[in-house]
Amino acid sequence: MSQEVENQPYRTLESRYITQTKWRSLREDRLEIGAGREISYSYLEIPRAVFVVPLTEDGQLVLIRQYRYPVRDWVLEVPAGSLETPDEDPLVAARRELLEEVGGECQKLIHLARFYSSSAHINLSSEVYLAVGVRLGQQHLEETELLERVILPAREGLTLARQGGITEGQSAYAVLLAESRILALENDTWLK
Amino acid sequence: MSQEVENQPYRTLESRYITQTKWRSLREDRLEIGAGREISYSYLEIPRAVFVVPLTEDGQLVLIRQYRYPVRDWVLEVPAGSLETPDEDPLVAARRELLEEVGGECQKLIHLARFYSSSAHINLSSEVYLAVGVRLGQQHLEETELLERVILPAREGLTLARQGGITEGQSAYAVLLAESRILALENDTWLK
Repeated sequence: MSQEVENQPYRTLESRYITQTKWRSLREDRLEIGAGREISYSYLEIPRAVFVVPLTEDGQLVLIRQYRYPVRDWVLEVPAGSLETPDEDPLVAARRELLEEVGGECQKLIHLARFYSSSAHINLSSEVYLAVGVRLGQQHLEETELLERVILPAREGLTLARQGGITEGQSAYAVLLAESRILALENDTWLK
Repeated sequence: MSQEVENQPYRTLESRYITQTKWRSLREDRLEIGAGREISYSYLEIPRAVFVVPLTEDGQLVLIRQYRYPVRDWVLEVPAGSLETPDEDPLVAARRELLEEVGGECQKLIHLARFYSSSAHINLSSEVYLAVGVRLGQQHLEETELLERVILPAREGLTLARQGGITEGQSAYAVLLAESRILALENDTWLK
């Protein structure tokens, strides 16, 4: 994630946690930003995460409709979640979220990209995977998770993402990152 | 942004600000989530924002490379920023960010979508615009902004976004939301 030190234009003078939990901490740093000037910068620290675009054996995308309290809204998403520990293999986390959130198991996970979610406010960095050959079973939800599966033909899901119908931007972006692979798989298999 | 009250599954019992500034507040709410169960939920409150995909008169995309302290990285983005007040017209904010961050003025702003950036952690909700007919002048940067313009043919920008090369997910998504309009404009004008 980080680059070489010489590419870091700010120097961290001091750092403190205003609140700190395993899943979400507010951190406030005092920075020297050059020419002796100092500013303070606060941001949210969150574990790294994975986003999984599940594609079933017969070419359906599996989305979830989930209630998100910070926006007081139900949003369309792909299965996603935090790494359990900083050094957890993201592939393990991807398989877990796929299983827990939509009850899916897959033949293969294809890594598509890494992205930041809102890098002015939050350190969140996520890996995106396409899960191919997904078979759906029972969901394994946490008690506080309110979500339902939404299963639709892959082309409809891609159109939805392209038109702004997947209002969670992270998930919409994950779906669009998978587009070329999905269309290639479609040509290879479903139509033959 | 919010839906009808009957679609709100949680009831807010209590709300407090752990820190509160104009641009970034950490809020902690106590919620009743059904069957008498209570949880606490903390999240970041941020003003609404705008993202602007600038397309010049000769078919170039204008991106910026910006240092983002929370991720200790330089990221590719489109011009973006917060509304100055909650009831500011997002179109006004879009023109301002376009001018400040890349020194651009445009013939027209086309609204593409609204999206959430990371709705489990932050209430951020943003409007996305395509700015067409952009002419570039002088940037008007804030003192703490470290950024440089990156100008490239629109098709290269679209490919970059599709392949994960625009590591700010919000900006990559904004570019992909603009794809069909950009390609339609390309057919209409640049190639004729």
